[in-house]
Amino acid sequence: MIKNTTIDKQLGHKTIRAFKEKVLTKEQINTLVEVAQHTSSSMFMQQFSIIHITDAEKKDKIRAISGQKYVGANGDLFIFVVDLHRNQRIRQQLGKDDGRLHQTDIFLQGVEDTVLAVQNTVNAAESMGLGAVILGSINDNPGELLKVLELPTMTYPILGIQIGIADQTPQLKPRLPLDVVFFENDYHEISLVDLKDYDEIVQTYYDLRNSNRRIDSFTNQVGSKKLGTKETHRNELLDVLHSQGLCLK
Amino acid sequence: MIKNTTIDKQLGHKTIRAFKEKVLTKEQINTLVEVAQHTSSSMFMQQFSIIHITDAEKKDKIRAISGQKYVGANGDLFIFVVDLHRNQRIRQQLGKDDGRLHQTDIFLQGVEDTVLAVQNTVNAAESMGLGAVILGSINDNPGELLKVLELPTMTYPILGIQIGIADQTPQLKPRLPLDVVFFENDYHEISLVDLKDYDEIVQTYYDLRNSNRRIDSFTNQVGSKKLGTKETHRNELLDVLHSQGLCLK
Repeated sequence: MIKNTTIDKQLGHKTIRAFKEKVLTKEQINTLVEVAQHTSSSMFMQQFSIIHITDAEKKDKIRAISGQKYVGANGDLFIFVVDLHRNQRIRQQLGKDDGRLHQTDIFLQGVEDTVLAVQNTVNAAESMGLGAVILGSINDNPGELLKVLELPTMTYPILGIQIGIADQTPQLKPRLPLDVVFFENDYHEISLVDLKDYDEIVQTYYDLRNSNRRIDSFTNQVGSKKLGTKETHRNELLDVLHSQGLCLK
Repeated sequence: MIKNTTIDKQLGHKTIRAFKEKVLTKEQINTLVEVAQHTSSSMFMQQFSIIHITDAEKKDKIRAISGQKYVGANGDLFIFVVDLHRNQRIRQQLGKDDGRLHQTDIFLQGVEDTVLAVQNTVNAAESMGLGAVILGSINDNPGELLKVLELPTMTYPILGIQIGIADQTPQLKPRLPLDVVFFENDYHEISLVDLKDYDEIVQTYYDLRNSNRRIDSFTNQVGSKKLGTKETHRNELLDVLHSQGLCLK
């Protein structure tokens, strides 16, 4: 394995969900945003925006949507927004129609721009010795989140990141074996038997979220309600995207 | 601005499209894939796979789809696949139904897992002194790409990365001004006038792809055919996703 300071951090990556009672410095924030900005972008269209949430009421509302007590608590909360609105507006001001902006293809390009920037920001934060958690839970109610953020059509706040000074030391979470996810030329089907050893390894991992309980095996988690049918506002996502003017065709 | 070796690479990031005639070592490849594996994953569902393309015929076909001569040429080509198939299969073998796997929400979670891993891999490659280009162009014909890769339903090969030893030195591409993409609490509309200075800066950038021509202003690029209505197989993306069983509701 090749080693250097970047890769050491990447291979040692642990999600941090407890932060010290301290906000980031202006210099830290500016550096993180500059890094996000320097991420590769599809067709150079730069279709994302970042909102730094400092307003206490907005933080409370976003925390309530996510159902996670660390969201908008200690540290700093950034919302990464897939932003096709900016380019739509530029086109309008140039007297152009919306072209392919309502296509799923362009939406996914915006998603790519945004999510690449999220990871780049996390890597920068960890390189500074900070901890971070990527927040998918902000979309546990996507329609409500849009209202809280007062976002215009053609935008979608896809992920948040809470960043701060770590106040916990989680274990490294064991990942799927390489031969299950990495192939040469041809995709391979896997079976439960290929995951037997991995399932046992996962059960030795302690999750700090749930009072240090061991977690369930990977295949049991896949078979559980995490992916199972249930009533959740997350099922409204496609309707919300459509009402935003996104993914129409 | 905070400086360290990781951030220096991130702020100096340039897409490389010309590589020396040399493939990566096994150690380099293993390190890159290990890093990808250690990326954060939504609900720990780890919904992506990576295919390393070494077969000459497959490389040729993917290059033809992308229309870019550097795809599958010097260096190494990796395809990052949104993979909901693996978890579907696990659920089936556990006697469970597909649950929410056909929802847009779960598809986007898989997209997030995959795209986060793409950026993490690029950062690792650049930290080793390698160059990389993220390839959205592999989906210039998404239905054809699925056939070439012989992928099962519930998968979508969203991005490629070509990685190798750089054989060019591009300029740093100027990004949108910070105040246009970074907000505190409230989203701000922008106007063409806010981009006047930036448009002039962009026009000083030389693109090595097109025989060192200066590129058009940013707003002109947004107003151009890049986002304009046109006949392209990319318009088939939503149908292709549906036929893969993805984003059905």
